[in-house]
Amino acid sequence: MSRITARRRITRVKLGDSPIRQEDVLAVEEPLEIRVGGRSLAVTMRTPGHDFDLAAGFLVSEGVITRGGEFAQARYCAGATVEGVNTYNVLDVTLADGVAPPDPSLERNFYTTSSCGVCGKASIDMVRTQSAYEVAEDPLRIDAAVLASFPDKLRAEQMVFEKTGGLHAAGLFDGKTGKMLVLREDVGRHNAVDKVIGWAVKEDRLPLRGTVLMVSGRASFELTQKAKMAGIPVLAAVSAPSSLAAELAVEVGLTLVGFLRGDSMVIYSGDQRVVEVDATVKEGSFA
Amino acid sequence: MSRITARRRITRVKLGDSPIRQEDVLAVEEPLEIRVGGRSLAVTMRTPGHDFDLAAGFLVSEGVITRGGEFAQARYCAGATVEGVNTYNVLDVTLADGVAPPDPSLERNFYTTSSCGVCGKASIDMVRTQSAYEVAEDPLRIDAAVLASFPDKLRAEQMVFEKTGGLHAAGLFDGKTGKMLVLREDVGRHNAVDKVIGWAVKEDRLPLRGTVLMVSGRASFELTQKAKMAGIPVLAAVSAPSSLAAELAVEVGLTLVGFLRGDSMVIYSGDQRVVEVDATVKEGSFA
Repeated sequence: MSRITARRRITRVKLGDSPIRQEDVLAVEEPLEIRVGGRSLAVTMRTPGHDFDLAAGFLVSEGVITRGGEFAQARYCAGATVEGVNTYNVLDVTLADGVAPPDPSLERNFYTTSSCGVCGKASIDMVRTQSAYEVAEDPLRIDAAVLASFPDKLRAEQMVFEKTGGLHAAGLFDGKTGKMLVLREDVGRHNAVDKVIGWAVKEDRLPLRGTVLMVSGRASFELTQKAKMAGIPVLAAVSAPSSLAAELAVEVGLTLVGFLRGDSMVIYSGDQRVVEVDATVKEGSFA
Repeated sequence: MSRITARRRITRVKLGDSPIRQEDVLAVEEPLEIRVGGRSLAVTMRTPGHDFDLAAGFLVSEGVITRGGEFAQARYCAGATVEGVNTYNVLDVTLADGVAPPDPSLERNFYTTSSCGVCGKASIDMVRTQSAYEVAEDPLRIDAAVLASFPDKLRAEQMVFEKTGGLHAAGLFDGKTGKMLVLREDVGRHNAVDKVIGWAVKEDRLPLRGTVLMVSGRASFELTQKAKMAGIPVLAAVSAPSSLAAELAVEVGLTLVGFLRGDSMVIYSGDQRVVEVDATVKEGSFA
């Protein structure tokens, strides 16, 4: 049994029928403590797997690193339990020489959980992170039909969701060819995104110019911010964005697409990047 | 215009048709900084509204207070911006005399965001909170048909979701009568739950014996923990639970129901509380 799914005894009830006790498969959720240079930086509730990518993506999202070369190595800490057993739930990252570690005064400012991306900010002013990359300048132009193909591609690759119904997914696509570059699943949508960005760190692909980040759920402020930090010019979501996600997208010049389902979508920011819109847009009525 | 929803200009695209630029309604997401006695404790990304309840529920979830009388008052801080404008995004809570404030050494351990409930723990050991209430002892027995009626009741009351498609909901039900006691919506599911629990604090109803907490999405570890902290014996979710949610529910004797849709459900823990199961359960095959 992998650590990504777990079997548990459950009781299945359908009104009018006799309930049945049987086994079922659940998505695993476990805490991961991320340390940098031995210092605890964050605890996130995540689905095990791709933990090094998760740590790398988290450090990009938080502005600690901006390129693959800045992440020297990571290892699971032994002796993490009282009995000295390696739980594979504590990861220590070593930054490359010359990379500034997170400010020690911010040490306790990075706590996070399964849907958490702005955790650990000491005050509201600190919620916004500064990006090394300018997504506004990304010249990507993408066909609406290519965008519309992403949800099916995402769903087709969601192996764990099929079994458990319990995971968020994030996929990174090439905006020109429409090819999926990587997909990650996690109980936390922000973890799924961090794992995608961490994969790109490992491949030394940052900034992720010309790409589209697609998420299975809603688009929040924090996911928009993560896209910005990785230099991704387009964020697309199956469901609704929040007001602050749309505001941030407008502010930094990121294209934000929501309700991407079937052959339709709603564009909240940066519609000039979507080819079909550019050519034929009609002005509707404004209430 | 309320602060719960916001109008924005969007571009609606349907393949083959001309795109239309118009206005649409989004769910508002804004940061709320929770202070206790003037000290910053947490920043959460939330939908404005019921902020006092959110703060009270958050303090219950974190084990700072256990009863309504321990929450003396709360007020929005003036001068929260550089210009001295009240943003209504900073709330200062005064605890009752004799209630211990959060440990100052934990000050930075409470950061949180729109789906975050275990944020701000200094290490994995701190993820689990201790509850003043024993849900295992709750004698509630609930009819499966009553449980099955909750999703429709929840959806019927979700006013903001209807407009925006962007909000999680949490509802509290009386387990005997099936009556909805309160419903709250938020961009963050843990905020929606904190607002429900905070309502109960205000009504001095803690512990919430004999009640069912129903959430619109998935059941995570953190939501299960919040139910436990408020003394709620049954947590029901429209979607899947995580493995750790089920483990915690078994450990503390909480009934955990997932995939509650139509006339069926899956019970992950505590099925003895569900009347129909109790009477007629069949043992299925175990792979």
